[in-house]
Amino acid sequence: MKNNMTYNQPILKFKNNKFIDTTDCYVSEFPLTIMINGEEFATIICSPNNLRELVIGFIASEGVIIKKDEIKQILIDDSKGFAHVELTKEINPDNKKYTQRMISSCCGKSRAFYFNNDAVTAKVSQSNLTISPEQVINMMDKLHTESKIFKETGGLHNAAISDGHYFYEHRSDIGRHNALDKLFGYCIEHDIPIRNKVLIFSGRISSEILIKAAKIGVGIILSKSAPTSLAINLAEDLNITAVGFIRDDSFNVYSHSERINTDNQD
Amino acid sequence: MKNNMTYNQPILKFKNNKFIDTTDCYVSEFPLTIMINGEEFATIICSPNNLRELVIGFIASEGVIIKKDEIKQILIDDSKGFAHVELTKEINPDNKKYTQRMISSCCGKSRAFYFNNDAVTAKVSQSNLTISPEQVINMMDKLHTESKIFKETGGLHNAAISDGHYFYEHRSDIGRHNALDKLFGYCIEHDIPIRNKVLIFSGRISSEILIKAAKIGVGIILSKSAPTSLAINLAEDLNITAVGFIRDDSFNVYSHSERINTDNQD
Repeated sequence: MKNNMTYNQPILKFKNNKFIDTTDCYVSEFPLTIMINGEEFATIICSPNNLRELVIGFIASEGVIIKKDEIKQILIDDSKGFAHVELTKEINPDNKKYTQRMISSCCGKSRAFYFNNDAVTAKVSQSNLTISPEQVINMMDKLHTESKIFKETGGLHNAAISDGHYFYEHRSDIGRHNALDKLFGYCIEHDIPIRNKVLIFSGRISSEILIKAAKIGVGIILSKSAPTSLAINLAEDLNITAVGFIRDDSFNVYSHSERINTDNQD
Repeated sequence: MKNNMTYNQPILKFKNNKFIDTTDCYVSEFPLTIMINGEEFATIICSPNNLRELVIGFIASEGVIIKKDEIKQILIDDSKGFAHVELTKEINPDNKKYTQRMISSCCGKSRAFYFNNDAVTAKVSQSNLTISPEQVINMMDKLHTESKIFKETGGLHNAAISDGHYFYEHRSDIGRHNALDKLFGYCIEHDIPIRNKVLIFSGRISSEILIKAAKIGVGIILSKSAPTSLAINLAEDLNITAVGFIRDDSFNVYSHSERINTDNQD
């Protein structure tokens, strides 16, 4: 089965004081259940593309794998919405446990996960990359330009990874975390070192997004939107440069501004 | 401890080709662990206001309670981030089970929860309320006008409940679902019947938001943003009128348009 990222469906539109029958474009939501070594691990609701990358990035950010050679095979059954992952090892019982304790709602997680288990996979950044204000603005411009589906439907989060010049990959997803997991999966599959890369993200920097960035291992995250206070505290602790509200030619640096070159400005 | 919805903290701002030291306003993220009859039930990350309502709305939408008289007491310890709920009954083992199986990430839940347990609490709407295009536009205008913190920080979701004329209450939260749970909790506490009410919401109508609306029991949901295809399918099935992209004087009706009066237009 081919899963589409968007659908056109009939709607009733009210405009100029009149109702008209027309069609509109929606984004898809696709439930994908990840089975690891035959056991149910998690179900994530996602946009149905780059599913292999999503699975790799998700299980890596959950601490199940560290390197791609721990994966024996991944079979994606996208007609039923299953990803069957076979590892070259047993899954660590701790990984099973903390996944079960995770809790839904947009910004919700078990406190134990939040404050204990995350600490295992979320790394303090060792990045020594620095970038200029022009690079900040140019990278966000490029994310906008490439985010065509977002413009059409207003329903997707976009993320990209860059070394400050080259835009490696750009991923879209209805779920904020999924877009980052797809990029993480891409980098793992293609052996791309992440330490001196930049994450560019369309959404808000919440504490979960900041933790995800730390798990991926970048030193700089750029966002179009506002961060939260908890995210900024975590960014300070994890040595991550958080830049937000990047609009036209202005932006705010919330933490570790030493990675943004402040020389050579007027 | 007083928990603030927002904080002012120092930032480095780049504007007009210059860096300046200034302050900016962030929204707070607050982890609240809900204990029911002495057992850990869930931890949700939320904005730290209206916590009692949030707890009531959350446990009601999870099917733990149906009426407020099933709650013996709720003690909120906001210095440690705990809500201790004592019920007048034992918690149903099914409720415990499906909560444990829920899974994080912005739009992720266990498939079992998604498709089976939700069916228990998500109701097919019995609402016979109808509203005019002017009411649609006016209610969204009113949500905007009242959403001051959102304007200041760009970080909160806003929701309100109305009978089409009177705006009962308006709640804000960093979590999409939390804003709706706070409203649900408010209505339960104040014995406000919900069937013929309208939910007005600043965020995207995802399948989870649509399911939440069905659990609350409204017949109409108004949103500033786009719905997803899965949400629209659920809205059709659950007899809910979903209206989105409400901008200035136009909007789209995605399902059950019979609740929007199409007469008396030019």
